[in-house]
Amino acid sequence: MSRHFENAPGLCEEADPSTQDFVFNQTMLRIKDPQRSLDFYTRVLGMRLIRKLDFPEMEFSLYFLGMVDEKAAADVPSNDPQRTTWVFRQQAMLELTHNWGTEKDPDFAYHNGNDQPQGFGHIGFSVPDVYAACARFESLGVEFVKRPDDGKMKGLAFIKDPDGYWIEILQANMMESQGQG
Amino acid sequence: MSRHFENAPGLCEEADPSTQDFVFNQTMLRIKDPQRSLDFYTRVLGMRLIRKLDFPEMEFSLYFLGMVDEKAAADVPSNDPQRTTWVFRQQAMLELTHNWGTEKDPDFAYHNGNDQPQGFGHIGFSVPDVYAACARFESLGVEFVKRPDDGKMKGLAFIKDPDGYWIEILQANMMESQGQG
Repeated sequence: MSRHFENAPGLCEEADPSTQDFVFNQTMLRIKDPQRSLDFYTRVLGMRLIRKLDFPEMEFSLYFLGMVDEKAAADVPSNDPQRTTWVFRQQAMLELTHNWGTEKDPDFAYHNGNDQPQGFGHIGFSVPDVYAACARFESLGVEFVKRPDDGKMKGLAFIKDPDGYWIEILQANMMESQGQG
Repeated sequence: MSRHFENAPGLCEEADPSTQDFVFNQTMLRIKDPQRSLDFYTRVLGMRLIRKLDFPEMEFSLYFLGMVDEKAAADVPSNDPQRTTWVFRQQAMLELTHNWGTEKDPDFAYHNGNDQPQGFGHIGFSVPDVYAACARFESLGVEFVKRPDDGKMKGLAFIKDPDGYWIEILQANMMESQGQG
């Protein structure tokens, strides 16, 4: 995969061999209300809850979700400790952290990273048909930041999860016209 | 993979078939200085820069990185449009957004989501040996939020990337003792 990014100073093209079994395992977002978030990520986006870990002393719970199809699901161990190990070996797990009680506070809200102060931007899902996916989201009452044909960037959308985090919805073979490089 | 999470109200256990080809493709973080971030994610964590997209009219660039081993790297198309499509079909891509010029402003900084106001928490890498990985990070001068044996949670660490975003470093088979459930 030799490739020169002359405009990318800082880039190291020779990966240290000790890093090559590293797995980009997870992205963690804090959520106010697991009932709403689990409904959204499982019913609307089709993720599965693989593992739930409770920390009663510190009053929080962690929910690990992934896009696990039927075939992969057959490989998920039913034994809890092995299931935990399985979760932490995968790519692309979504970890939702719930600090107990926030769901009862009407004034409580997390910061989505796109309002000031900015930082984290979004997570993103690649879908087979961005228009069909967005029509379904629309029918389910999902809130949009950007519909697929709004603005300059055609064929990609942003929706909001129950905490207001942005989720990009894109179709891989429609992204070729985005940007230069 | 039938499994009942009686304590997880809101959970939908029947995934809508139309969602089952969705891919959790990306996590986007804004970065101040691509030179520092590319150095960190490629040299320290062993990621590869797969695609760079420039948007001159809007004065920003996107960098897409992934953990792509030699075998997978052979499948990455060399043709730019096809390479773009490839990027957006993968799981677990890290998208770094650089708004041009921020690197020149000594007072500019992004918000990491763990200071107030909170929201996004961290990304995480699963490594074969958390102590060996952290010893190497230490030797490279990486900043730690938590070393593997600090605090109650033994055998997992948090480091900081150049913008101060937290990165969990964990070893899958050491996570079984974390939490209940």
